[in-house]
Amino acid sequence: MEDMNINSVKAKVLTAALPYIQKYNGKTVVVKYGGNAMIHPLLKKAVMSDIILLKLVGINIVLVHGGGPEISSMLERLDIPSRFVNGLRYTDEETIEIVQMVLSGKTNKDLVSLIEQLGGTAIGMCGIDAGMIQAKKLEGDYGYVGDITHINTEPIENAIANGYIPVIATVGTDLDGNVYNINADTAAAEIATALQAENIITLTDIRGLLQDVDDPDSLISTVTMDDIPTLMERGIISGGMIPKIKGLEAAIKAGVKKAVMIDGRIEHSILIEMFSDEGIGTMFTK
Amino acid sequence: MEDMNINSVKAKVLTAALPYIQKYNGKTVVVKYGGNAMIHPLLKKAVMSDIILLKLVGINIVLVHGGGPEISSMLERLDIPSRFVNGLRYTDEETIEIVQMVLSGKTNKDLVSLIEQLGGTAIGMCGIDAGMIQAKKLEGDYGYVGDITHINTEPIENAIANGYIPVIATVGTDLDGNVYNINADTAAAEIATALQAENIITLTDIRGLLQDVDDPDSLISTVTMDDIPTLMERGIISGGMIPKIKGLEAAIKAGVKKAVMIDGRIEHSILIEMFSDEGIGTMFTK
Amino acid sequence: MEDMNINSVKAKVLTAALPYIQKYNGKTVVVKYGGNAMIHPLLKKAVMSDIILLKLVGINIVLVHGGGPEISSMLERLDIPSRFVNGLRYTDEETIEIVQMVLSGKTNKDLVSLIEQLGGTAIGMCGIDAGMIQAKKLEGDYGYVGDITHINTEPIENAIANGYIPVIATVGTDLDGNVYNINADTAAAEIATALQAENIITLTDIRGLLQDVDDPDSLISTVTMDDIPTLMERGIISGGMIPKIKGLEAAIKAGVKKAVMIDGRIEHSILIEMFSDEGIGTMFTK
Amino acid sequence: MEDMNINSVKAKVLTAALPYIQKYNGKTVVVKYGGNAMIHPLLKKAVMSDIILLKLVGINIVLVHGGGPEISSMLERLDIPSRFVNGLRYTDEETIEIVQMVLSGKTNKDLVSLIEQLGGTAIGMCGIDAGMIQAKKLEGDYGYVGDITHINTEPIENAIANGYIPVIATVGTDLDGNVYNINADTAAAEIATALQAENIITLTDIRGLLQDVDDPDSLISTVTMDDIPTLMERGIISGGMIPKIKGLEAAIKAGVKKAVMIDGRIEHSILIEMFSDEGIGTMFTK
Amino acid sequence: MEDMNINSVKAKVLTAALPYIQKYNGKTVVVKYGGNAMIHPLLKKAVMSDIILLKLVGINIVLVHGGGPEISSMLERLDIPSRFVNGLRYTDEETIEIVQMVLSGKTNKDLVSLIEQLGGTAIGMCGIDAGMIQAKKLEGDYGYVGDITHINTEPIENAIANGYIPVIATVGTDLDGNVYNINADTAAAEIATALQAENIITLTDIRGLLQDVDDPDSLISTVTMDDIPTLMERGIISGGMIPKIKGLEAAIKAGVKKAVMIDGRIEHSILIEMFSDEGIGTMFTK
Amino acid sequence: MEDMNINSVKAKVLTAALPYIQKYNGKTVVVKYGGNAMIHPLLKKAVMSDIILLKLVGINIVLVHGGGPEISSMLERLDIPSRFVNGLRYTDEETIEIVQMVLSGKTNKDLVSLIEQLGGTAIGMCGIDAGMIQAKKLEGDYGYVGDITHINTEPIENAIANGYIPVIATVGTDLDGNVYNINADTAAAEIATALQAENIITLTDIRGLLQDVDDPDSLISTVTMDDIPTLMERGIISGGMIPKIKGLEAAIKAGVKKAVMIDGRIEHSILIEMFSDEGIGTMFTK
Repeated sequence: MEDMNINSVKAKVLTAALPYIQKYNGKTVVVKYGGNAMIHPLLKKAVMSDIILLKLVGINIVLVHGGGPEISSMLERLDIPSRFVNGLRYTDEETIEIVQMVLSGKTNKDLVSLIEQLGGTAIGMCGIDAGMIQAKKLEGDYGYVGDITHINTEPIENAIANGYIPVIATVGTDLDGNVYNINADTAAAEIATALQAENIITLTDIRGLLQDVDDPDSLISTVTMDDIPTLMERGIISGGMIPKIKGLEAAIKAGVKKAVMIDGRIEHSILIEMFSDEGIGTMFTK
Repeated sequence: MEDMNINSVKAKVLTAALPYIQKYNGKTVVVKYGGNAMIHPLLKKAVMSDIILLKLVGINIVLVHGGGPEISSMLERLDIPSRFVNGLRYTDEETIEIVQMVLSGKTNKDLVSLIEQLGGTAIGMCGIDAGMIQAKKLEGDYGYVGDITHINTEPIENAIANGYIPVIATVGTDLDGNVYNINADTAAAEIATALQAENIITLTDIRGLLQDVDDPDSLISTVTMDDIPTLMERGIISGGMIPKIKGLEAAIKAGVKKAVMIDGRIEHSILIEMFSDEGIGTMFTK
Repeated sequence: MEDMNINSVKAKVLTAALPYIQKYNGKTVVVKYGGNAMIHPLLKKAVMSDIILLKLVGINIVLVHGGGPEISSMLERLDIPSRFVNGLRYTDEETIEIVQMVLSGKTNKDLVSLIEQLGGTAIGMCGIDAGMIQAKKLEGDYGYVGDITHINTEPIENAIANGYIPVIATVGTDLDGNVYNINADTAAAEIATALQAENIITLTDIRGLLQDVDDPDSLISTVTMDDIPTLMERGIISGGMIPKIKGLEAAIKAGVKKAVMIDGRIEHSILIEMFSDEGIGTMFTK
Repeated sequence: MEDMNINSVKAKVLTAALPYIQKYNGKTVVVKYGGNAMIHPLLKKAVMSDIILLKLVGINIVLVHGGGPEISSMLERLDIPSRFVNGLRYTDEETIEIVQMVLSGKTNKDLVSLIEQLGGTAIGMCGIDAGMIQAKKLEGDYGYVGDITHINTEPIENAIANGYIPVIATVGTDLDGNVYNINADTAAAEIATALQAENIITLTDIRGLLQDVDDPDSLISTVTMDDIPTLMERGIISGGMIPKIKGLEAAIKAGVKKAVMIDGRIEHSILIEMFSDEGIGTMFTK
Repeated sequence: MEDMNINSVKAKVLTAALPYIQKYNGKTVVVKYGGNAMIHPLLKKAVMSDIILLKLVGINIVLVHGGGPEISSMLERLDIPSRFVNGLRYTDEETIEIVQMVLSGKTNKDLVSLIEQLGGTAIGMCGIDAGMIQAKKLEGDYGYVGDITHINTEPIENAIANGYIPVIATVGTDLDGNVYNINADTAAAEIATALQAENIITLTDIRGLLQDVDDPDSLISTVTMDDIPTLMERGIISGGMIPKIKGLEAAIKAGVKKAVMIDGRIEHSILIEMFSDEGIGTMFTK
Repeated sequence: MEDMNINSVKAKVLTAALPYIQKYNGKTVVVKYGGNAMIHPLLKKAVMSDIILLKLVGINIVLVHGGGPEISSMLERLDIPSRFVNGLRYTDEETIEIVQMVLSGKTNKDLVSLIEQLGGTAIGMCGIDAGMIQAKKLEGDYGYVGDITHINTEPIENAIANGYIPVIATVGTDLDGNVYNINADTAAAEIATALQAENIITLTDIRGLLQDVDDPDSLISTVTMDDIPTLMERGIISGGMIPKIKGLEAAIKAGVKKAVMIDGRIEHSILIEMFSDEGIGTMFTK
């Protein structure tokens, strides 16, 4: 009889998810995946399981990933020095070649492979494929760091229509065939905007936006667009947070309903966020 | 922090459902709904929630229902005596009129209404609509009790293709416009067969098939087609069980993969059955 | 040789129908069906034949029906008193249950059955199915009498696309699952409006709109929207006529091209109306 | 009131056509059109009306026509002598040019024009268009008289799918661009076969197949495939009748359900044939 | 080895065509075909080859043709005198009959036949088919010379969608079934306008628009809409050129991107025009 | 005038390609791309131009590529020793990681980028994407060298249906997520087989199959399946040629119509092969 009770609890949990599933059914959700959640194997598997589950319950998941640590490690193995300017990797011709190769050939395909092993069906793409991410050189002296000029959503929409989970490596390209390193947070936000996504979820290595960066319990649950200037002035949004939040802000202003920054270190944080009222992390809304 | 732990447990439960969802995704499952699960309001709501959830995770649910108690109650109110012959309601002209009206106008539409309230989209039909259940008079003297001659799956398949949950009241018809009372277990089995369903689930008021009808712990978990003759000889399958099991047997022989008889009195028994390895109740297979 | 002459006359009649068929081909026509034409078996059969013929010649017929007499008779059998307030049936909880059951389970399915016997293909639906007729309580003290807030045309359009004649029982529903009794004339007019129908035809028990209600020869053939206020002032439109004509007026103002009120007691009055220049009954136009 | 009675009779006639319309709905019927029915303007208009009516009630009509008299008249005007060998026009290079021009440019387009004037939509084609009628030189010395080797049904089916009545002039072609004069009876039978038509109707200048060619009352109503050898031996099928009946025989053997030869001189003979049980003329069946 | 060098040159030529093919891929181009290019057999074959090639590389070619010489020759053979008023053939009832017959039955089908022989698939149509070219009597006393009132693009678009090259004979029609002789240049321009074509190419018997009509080297390469009034004043556009250029002007004003008048006497002039930067002949643009 | 003559020659070349374009229109052709044609930038550009041209003229090109030299160079930079066993690279865990990364992240995306720069639209995929190339460990001790067990053509067919040129890197995968290095010749042959391609073209660094490996003029133009055993016995097919030819043989036996091995060092060799009768290189047929 015990088993039945456990199963009965399980059934109640599933039923409790019903309204959330109904809410997102048929909607597009962009997940920006990076940081520790991408390095730790168990967490990686948990994130991919969440994504497959969301796909199966009828949510059009688009996975956008970075791959900083794998790039750094490969550059190191090849004795190519990494240099950062204003928090951005300076990307010379030799470096962009490695960035493209590692992001679209290693990180991207490893994620696709993991989704397939867990029973999902994914297709890996980078911004070069079907000219998906059009970019130009970012102003300033960063080498082949790109500024997005246009997102061609067609290959992403085709993948969704064919039942695949699109997994996107964020290198961009221009009409002359130059390849650019694109900040994955920015790319995810622009892709969400172009797809008129319902939601963008960013996995990070912190609890969310914190009043006091050293106190994980000082989490700010909700941020409206009007709060952002003050939060910047007060230095609560600072450093690497600035481009992330600029991207989310732009997406929301362009019609994405909700943007959330959640802690990728918590197992199944995506499901907890999407399938509970309180959510976790920091939610940005209009 | 406590909330997060609870949510984390919930997330694990959802993730644990993933392989079952993958297994049934895109498949057709016929649910035969009757008995206490249909009378008790909370159970009724739980069954409809389960059905909406299954629909949302990509399973093509077809709900086939009876309505004996509501028919009996209406006949009583109208002073029409109920008479049973070999366990079947003798159905004269006055009775079949009431059967049709209550089943397709009350029970059927009440179920559709409940599904709509819970956020699903359903369409109620009876065997008369688009000539779905073709029948002739059952041999013997039962009045307008029908024997199915043909199932026209088109209106059911149209409903599925349009994203609706088809809810089916089991009255049948012939070319002369006679209406027949059809046993809902038989109809569900024939519909499952015609739709080449993956699975047929029958909600009953007992734990399943019992070795000893008075001992709920004597449940028989699995029955193969070869076991049935012996179980009949030994009287374990008897009385009202015979037509139910004859129907399931025919469905399995015609290609339905699995037929399960589960206890509708247990809340969310459908989910427990479909989303766990052990299942509940009695499973019939080839 | 005589037969050939008769056949030759028949052929000429058919050919004479050609321009009318051409005119309505591919258009949607809503037929509001009620009154004596619905009670007398021969008339009922003639109306259904007309509808099947119109469907076959490429007109998208939508049949909307009432069922007052059958409701009254069932209420009487159940000793539930009928009470009318301002010409509307006061509908308490017990009554609405019977209204829903009789309209969607008896009247509706009997019409579907008759169409099928005559070789057509129909699907019966009520306003609860796929949330087709959304309603709220009508202002005033009428109990569960509904005021339409929205028509979801999707299930009707699906039925048409699948080649079926949709037959609609006019009970409505709200998001809390309350069921409402809806005036069939009003519902037909709102459905015609929502479907952007070409034409709405109302079968009644009189010749049409009469100058002198006691003189069937005082028929008014044509009424424009501008005539209506005067006709009301003069009492020519009065009593039960008011809601009927209000509905037709609203439909025409919303783009339905023509609304006709014809005498359902004349056999094949629908065909005569649609397939002759003079028509019969009263035509309402812009 | 008189008008109403007339209209009521008309309505009854229309309703009487219902079962025949139901029978042919969605089926393909090839009409071979030639002879007097093609020359006399009133008859021509009556035939075109019938065809439009049949199209509108959902029958896929394909009109195949000859044009002997118009060809002869043009040849005469151009002082090109007509020569017949075994009942076939000997067709030299100069003649085939005129045959093609008159059939596809005059007869064909005049028929299309007439259909359009009567409110139908037609598209004229000849066997050259999209390589529809592939042919080779008929054995024997007839010049450019063709023997059909293949029918490409694609352009005909496209026309039907686009809602047009295809009107076909029976000149054929081979891969070298030679054009051939094709017997219209044979072409109609081959087209009916290739389209797997339900029915082929041939309009002639006699009552049908007659026991005694001089006695119009000696009509043979029904001929089965087994009767044909005897009818030939006895000379009842003879002369120009032989190729006509050979064609119908081949069509029926290839699956066309019914072939009828009717009197094109009787107004609306097509409607009388299709919309009455007895039909007119001679019916050929398996 | 020599062959390889030749092949290598050929390959380079093909590759050089790539940007032009890319430019026109999926676009609609109307070719007005007439004059010497239509009479000389080798030129005729070269034009048809070009058209098939353009169709195969993904350009939707629509071929609009005249047929003056063939009409004149037939009228002469029939002793019907040709009379010209203001450069237009006076078209009495007898003449229009011959015009229709020759254009749609001879010229049109001969072109279709030639395309088929060369491996393409074409369908011949005239303005009567599916009421494609609606016209009324041209003002002035020209008999059955027509002024286009409406182009029904549906049959042309159907032909394109079905993979055929539509070949169009320019006779028009009105609702009373009158047939009109339509200037082919005007018809081609109106068809290009109605189809929102990218380009209209007119094959003529001169090098293009010449400064000095007697000096073929005085070709004007480009004419903008603003140049036209001056060119008319100066008499450079005069005589039969006026209607041609009026048509092109109207097409360009209605959105056709480019109109070119090229020398049909040069073999493959269409390919040279479309697949080289300089083009040949005179180009008209906004 | 000179230009015109050159253009006229060009037009003749284009016209000469017409029958070849007609022959392959709508067919699928797999191009195996490797060797020098892949290293030399000008040749690389020429091959991509050819492919875009073929795509534009309606041929469904699928590009399958290897990348040996780029892999070797990266392994060298990373000080990972390359070891070959029976002509196959021994592939340990560290090596397969690099193989996957270089092939799918560098070679593949560089090709896609080049196609895009030249005006085509391509999508890069590897065997991991949507589980396209299923493989198991090749028998023998080669590490992660794979033996294809199944090709999932769906992602390739989707790419074609969406108008893209699929560019495929030949790494494979199994259900446990192991990645395998797959011989590109074998993969191309299996993909051609699975797609039921018309044709497979292999670009190599030699003239074709040579009687005498040192004499480029000893080219064998045609090889039938029956010739292969003898050619093997006589050592004319030997070494690295064996797997290439085994693959082509299997493809032809499975229904691919023609397999050609051509010299990738000759500019536009694909066009020369496809658009001339003699072709170049060695053709393998049934």
